[in-house]
Amino acid sequence: MAGPGVFIAFEGGEGAGKSTQVARLAASLTDGGHSVRTTREPGATALGTTVRSIVLDPANTGLSARAEALLYAADRAQHVHEVVRPALAAGQVVLTDRFVDSSLAYQGAGRSFAESDIRSISHWATEGLQPDLTVLLDLPPETGLARARGRAAADRLEAESVDFHERVRATFRALAAAEPGRYLVLDATGTPDALAAAVRDRVAVLLGAGW
Amino acid sequence: MAGPGVFIAFEGGEGAGKSTQVARLAASLTDGGHSVRTTREPGATALGTTVRSIVLDPANTGLSARAEALLYAADRAQHVHEVVRPALAAGQVVLTDRFVDSSLAYQGAGRSFAESDIRSISHWATEGLQPDLTVLLDLPPETGLARARGRAAADRLEAESVDFHERVRATFRALAAAEPGRYLVLDATGTPDALAAAVRDRVAVLLGAGW
Repeated sequence: MAGPGVFIAFEGGEGAGKSTQVARLAASLTDGGHSVRTTREPGATALGTTVRSIVLDPANTGLSARAEALLYAADRAQHVHEVVRPALAAGQVVLTDRFVDSSLAYQGAGRSFAESDIRSISHWATEGLQPDLTVLLDLPPETGLARARGRAAADRLEAESVDFHERVRATFRALAAAEPGRYLVLDATGTPDALAAAVRDRVAVLLGAGW
Repeated sequence: MAGPGVFIAFEGGEGAGKSTQVARLAASLTDGGHSVRTTREPGATALGTTVRSIVLDPANTGLSARAEALLYAADRAQHVHEVVRPALAAGQVVLTDRFVDSSLAYQGAGRSFAESDIRSISHWATEGLQPDLTVLLDLPPETGLARARGRAAADRLEAESVDFHERVRATFRALAAAEPGRYLVLDATGTPDALAAAVRDRVAVLLGAGW
């Protein structure tokens, strides 16, 4: 892998509770004496902040789907270069809110590009970096979107059709099914406490085996 | 091709005179009754303006080479989608100051990425769009850089070493040598008038055959 650290990604649709679970796991790992770095895509770097403001602005209706996918890839390349690899090299546990799977789901399935093309671009952007574990918070789109809409105005992704979000969900589930050993799939309708406990148990196994 | 229009790219190193020759050809085509659209990379769209400001800012020393290459690709995808293809579909002669070859030269040879990777990303970004003709204004880097430095403060690309610009030049020449029928290679130490005449003659052949 990329260093002595451990890399864990949280994936899932809008409103699935990723940021809550990232924060819960970070707190419990820190309590356990681990050095933790939490991060996210898009937007973890100065470049990423610019990219995030472009791709999530509902005013950017003229943005082509290919340009959008390449902007996410640029954000990811900078994120891996500037944040993730240095933290892994320093031995930290890195928790990211979204990674490559989100591009495969949103740009691949959602926008109907060939998954293999999106995968190649992401592979090039990250130089092949893969999470040691991906936690998929799986939720019916209606439930997640209702949660997300309760929070704030819909951004460009949230404003897509339910059918789009169904394809996104199906892609996340298929990615997990293809590599069961590297995924933890959780029913995100569970309580935050129950989800946090399930994540903690799985990560304890990973850290016990890897460190 | 992409429509009834004709697509002509101008390529070459810093200070080779691309923008001058684009303007000269545009004027002579317009005089001849053609509808002309001049454009450039990066920076022809709102997204491109943002990308250009990021990649050319000397303050962005932390920008990873992969992120930079993907930003250029995002700019190109939006440029083709929003400017080039619509103009070609409308039957215009489109003249662009830089296109795919600049990425192959600057990101491929200059930054030592595999040319095939950069080519794949550009191919995906443009959906395979290729110029009908590429005019390469070929110049020793020392000459071009001296010209460019006479104009303004060095941007990030101009501040690279002469060795970098030698590799860039060699890549442009190799691309032209591989497809001689689609390239016009000119010694850019010639006078602007002589270069403009050579370009006009070659384009007259292209338009005569294609229209």
